[in-house]
Amino acid sequence: MHVVLPDGKQLDLPDRATGADVAAAIGPGLARAALGLRVDGRLSDLLTEVPAGATVQILTGRDSADVIELQRHTLAHVLAQAVREHLEAEGHAPTSVRLGIGPVIEHGFYYDFDLPRSLTPDDLEAIEERMRAIVAADLPLERTVVERDAALARYRALEDPYKVELIEDLPEDVPITFYRQGGETGFSDLCRGPHVPRTGALPTHFKLTSLAGAYWRGDERRPMLQRVYGVAFADAAALEKHLWQLEEAKKRDHRKLGAELDIFTLDDDIGPGLPLWLPRGTIIVEELERLAHEVESAAGYQHVRSPHLSKEQLFIKSGHLPYYEESMFPAMVIDDQKYFVKPMNCPFHHKIYAARPRSYRDLPLRLAEYGTCYRYEDHGALMGLMRVRSMQMNDAHIYCTEAQFEAEFMGVIELYLHYFDLFAIDSYVMRLSKHAASGLGKKYVDEPELWIRTEAMVRSALERGGINFVEAEDEAAFYGPKIDVQITSAIGREFTLATNQVDFSQPGRFDLTYVDEDGQRKTPLCLHRAPLSTHERMVGFLIEHYAGDFPLWLAPEQVRVVPIADRHLPYATEVAERLTRDGLRAEVDGGNDRMNAKVRSAELKKVPYIVIVGDTEADAGTVSFRSRKEPQRNGVPLAAFSDHLARHARERAGQVEGLT
Amino acid sequence: MHVVLPDGKQLDLPDRATGADVAAAIGPGLARAALGLRVDGRLSDLLTEVPAGATVQILTGRDSADVIELQRHTLAHVLAQAVREHLEAEGHAPTSVRLGIGPVIEHGFYYDFDLPRSLTPDDLEAIEERMRAIVAADLPLERTVVERDAALARYRALEDPYKVELIEDLPEDVPITFYRQGGETGFSDLCRGPHVPRTGALPTHFKLTSLAGAYWRGDERRPMLQRVYGVAFADAAALEKHLWQLEEAKKRDHRKLGAELDIFTLDDDIGPGLPLWLPRGTIIVEELERLAHEVESAAGYQHVRSPHLSKEQLFIKSGHLPYYEESMFPAMVIDDQKYFVKPMNCPFHHKIYAARPRSYRDLPLRLAEYGTCYRYEDHGALMGLMRVRSMQMNDAHIYCTEAQFEAEFMGVIELYLHYFDLFAIDSYVMRLSKHAASGLGKKYVDEPELWIRTEAMVRSALERGGINFVEAEDEAAFYGPKIDVQITSAIGREFTLATNQVDFSQPGRFDLTYVDEDGQRKTPLCLHRAPLSTHERMVGFLIEHYAGDFPLWLAPEQVRVVPIADRHLPYATEVAERLTRDGLRAEVDGGNDRMNAKVRSAELKKVPYIVIVGDTEADAGTVSFRSRKEPQRNGVPLAAFSDHLARHARERAGQVEGLT
Repeated sequence: MHVVLPDGKQLDLPDRATGADVAAAIGPGLARAALGLRVDGRLSDLLTEVPAGATVQILTGRDSADVIELQRHTLAHVLAQAVREHLEAEGHAPTSVRLGIGPVIEHGFYYDFDLPRSLTPDDLEAIEERMRAIVAADLPLERTVVERDAALARYRALEDPYKVELIEDLPEDVPITFYRQGGETGFSDLCRGPHVPRTGALPTHFKLTSLAGAYWRGDERRPMLQRVYGVAFADAAALEKHLWQLEEAKKRDHRKLGAELDIFTLDDDIGPGLPLWLPRGTIIVEELERLAHEVESAAGYQHVRSPHLSKEQLFIKSGHLPYYEESMFPAMVIDDQKYFVKPMNCPFHHKIYAARPRSYRDLPLRLAEYGTCYRYEDHGALMGLMRVRSMQMNDAHIYCTEAQFEAEFMGVIELYLHYFDLFAIDSYVMRLSKHAASGLGKKYVDEPELWIRTEAMVRSALERGGINFVEAEDEAAFYGPKIDVQITSAIGREFTLATNQVDFSQPGRFDLTYVDEDGQRKTPLCLHRAPLSTHERMVGFLIEHYAGDFPLWLAPEQVRVVPIADRHLPYATEVAERLTRDGLRAEVDGGNDRMNAKVRSAELKKVPYIVIVGDTEADAGTVSFRSRKEPQRNGVPLAAFSDHLARHARERAGQVEGLT
Repeated sequence: MHVVLPDGKQLDLPDRATGADVAAAIGPGLARAALGLRVDGRLSDLLTEVPAGATVQILTGRDSADVIELQRHTLAHVLAQAVREHLEAEGHAPTSVRLGIGPVIEHGFYYDFDLPRSLTPDDLEAIEERMRAIVAADLPLERTVVERDAALARYRALEDPYKVELIEDLPEDVPITFYRQGGETGFSDLCRGPHVPRTGALPTHFKLTSLAGAYWRGDERRPMLQRVYGVAFADAAALEKHLWQLEEAKKRDHRKLGAELDIFTLDDDIGPGLPLWLPRGTIIVEELERLAHEVESAAGYQHVRSPHLSKEQLFIKSGHLPYYEESMFPAMVIDDQKYFVKPMNCPFHHKIYAARPRSYRDLPLRLAEYGTCYRYEDHGALMGLMRVRSMQMNDAHIYCTEAQFEAEFMGVIELYLHYFDLFAIDSYVMRLSKHAASGLGKKYVDEPELWIRTEAMVRSALERGGINFVEAEDEAAFYGPKIDVQITSAIGREFTLATNQVDFSQPGRFDLTYVDEDGQRKTPLCLHRAPLSTHERMVGFLIEHYAGDFPLWLAPEQVRVVPIADRHLPYATEVAERLTRDGLRAEVDGGNDRMNAKVRSAELKKVPYIVIVGDTEADAGTVSFRSRKEPQRNGVPLAAFSDHLARHARERAGQVEGLT
């Protein structure tokens, strides 16, 4: 047999040669350096046979993005071996440590265990020690193909229901493989690979990060297993940065801060994925709506409101029922008619377009609504504000002619960039999400030519606008291509926030037309856009992005006024009233705590300005204040302070700078 | 036997004496003047026997409120007789004119017919002529009691399924009575009365107003009958005023104006009772929300937002499912749980109260939300914006101690009065709606003592606040007494707009507590209030109240700028931009129509200010304008005009007065 090398050369090899044989045939240096390989583009390992005629690329330490994948997978096995040894050392039978699955995930790996006792954070440290010993021991890995019946017999003898189930679920034609590290008496696991060839090839830049419960196969009716998470990186700096991000993300977790800052709550009687906005969260939501209203009005949008439910025929017409039903809430039957809560606002806006005859003079018609939509998400997928079942969306639909398309499309892109700038989001990726021909008539409306033409229009608009973007197949909306925007928070977490979609299908399905200058009836194009995403996702993102330290204009409470003693309460109240009159959100802490405790309490609520007033201030009509951004200032005239803050809040300044 | 007269005197009478006998026994003058009577407070007639021992009051023309009731009922019979004669005169058999029911309604009466042909508006005139002839003929009315079997036999012989059904549905112990006018060969109808004694006692101030289809017994699966409506009043002035109101109401009908002014629309694909707010309607809705937000914030309310659906257990806890299910939308089943769209916002606000531990220092806690609720209303009851299935409510819940109750309750009443003043609503009725002991445990929570105590608290607050009010039994909410507010529009139509409810039940059901000054856990009281009602009802009311001529601050388009010729378009645009910068809603009519047509078009859209600009204005930087309230003004400096309007809009002035 032969294989093909990256430079196109053929390499002759004995039949059933493995990856290691390929590396050795090229040369002894590469054989030593080899850690894995790509076979016809797919990741594989040195222990696996290479199919005849395949194109083969040997991976070494320099190919770290690929190699780290193999290393993380092997680390999962090392973790499993270490857990078994750890519990054996305590006297538990090795067969009492049953293994579920142990895959690679972003940044690392996990393994699910059924154990004789619950693990604790202390266990993780001990287990990590054992893992480091296994790495240091440089155990070789071996791969064996085992007959299905033999494999089943092996696990049945061990009374291991998990691996038995995994094997039974494998298709008949898939070979059953095991990986073993440490020779005959070593640790062996059912696994399809790929792995590095020896534990000495693993990085030391790894760490076990957390413990969690996980249902076997994600099914809440099945047993709950113990999941151990780990991360691993090619170098120490990357591990350190990631651990810092994890730590920071934990502090910034919008669920934690959302509770501490009284932003939102969830309630068992109401249901999962249905958050309640508390008064402070509502202020943020209202500020976002005010922002959107101003920006959209200035950009020529008109605002509308549409009901939250509709007869099924609307969603049949829109295509949601044929293409999107699994994400919709179930029907309610009223007067012998099926009604659904809306998964999207678009069909309602189409109806508003259709409510009047339209001419080319009405176009572009831009209809905007912060509309609430309802989507069925699996219970297990729900997460804080990020994955919810009811969401209020910064939605709008722009109806335009084909000639107007590019200007409107770029106008929307500019809107995104404007918001990114306002929120100090300096890292983002725009992705042109396209259809896949294989999904036509299933996930995508069956209009092959329109797909290609519209995708080309979008690509050309992006290129001419000088926007950086990537392209992805099979990620479009069912009615047309879209731009998915992924933004990165201040600590490097990625959020898919917003889409800008082109729709060549729904206007036709709704018989939307306009009379053109030439007197002909034509069908408009439609853009769907939601640059501020949903309130839920956006506020979730902003909490983590700002770590709760919102810019002045977004802060639910902007100023806390703290009287030094009870006798300063009247002046404190006067200060708060002046600030309120200037449109600021100010509160007086009139409680019984001492001053320092009051300041601390305001800091915990992340109030941007804390004003302290005593005799000096009351006599002079001034304030002393401290803020997150500035050192303490004393004796600032109240009027100047209030004007300064009010102006910054009105201007939505990100950084509020010193009074001059 | 004897009866008792209003002055307490007893009057002896032969057994089985009728009302007419009572009048005759008092004196011949009264016998001539008598038109009906009240027996133990209930309306009766001169043809009916008076029970022994009853208290009896004879009614004459001076008791017009009672007498008009009798007259309207008799007019319904006269209408039926006239319809039969009208169709007989055409050659139709009298038995082909079948009668449904013919009751008294507000302002008049109607009768439902099953006829051999459809009636037209021309028929109504002819029928009214015949009615006037019957009145002029002064036919005597007679009342007879007929055995059930004989009555059934009579209608079966006539093949009349309607009257047969009515008789069969009467309880066995109710006597079957007929009223006949015009002697043996006259018109006879199954009827329980009461009536005036002769058609000559009917007023001539009546009119047949309209024709409509009506299902037999209101059931859409039964035959559609033809309903003829009429009105009748005691004097010509009242009839004339009513006909003017009808005419005006037709012009002001919010469904008609709502379409003409692009305020809202309904769509068959979406469903009945689910209006879409068009851009101009959305502006009105947003202005109302801005108003409420300002007023509520100043009054110490905090705003919240709650989801639109919930698990059933929330509504079981709140009592909505046990007491209110028939008005709710049906359940959706998600993850084996029943979910409902919310019929009210209260349980969600209770959950926000409960999300944090509360102390007496937190009270009163006032949570406000323009929340959307969903109520199942019968298809036939839906009407424009007035009766809908989805409504956005100016809701709030105030949690307070018993000591704070009166101040909070009166604060809410003051809020109502403030809004009435703003909207120039000078006629309103406040009604204290109380429970009925018979409904305890069914329509009302079963807490007899709390009901009585709370109703007394409300009564005393209203009395001490000097508020005029009436009381009504059996009209409370299921959790407590309420104030229903009925307002009267500029043309005298009544709308039930708003309620202020006291809730002594739900806080307990939700385990809401606060720690009082004495360290004890106590349950707060809760006030529910919605002074601006729902957007749907309020905008519907305001359209009719203002006849679409909204005050400046509410007008969707405040200024239309009309250039005299194309060359004035740049200056027109400059004017509009200046107005927009000052926060006004201004549009330029840049179309091809002539100036007069443009002015007419702006008038049809009821734009409060129409600005006309030509050479003079462009040269001088001035505007000429006309408004609904002022004569045309020329040469007003643009800045002064814009400032003036912006100030009036900001102040929500009802009447915008001249520039000085």
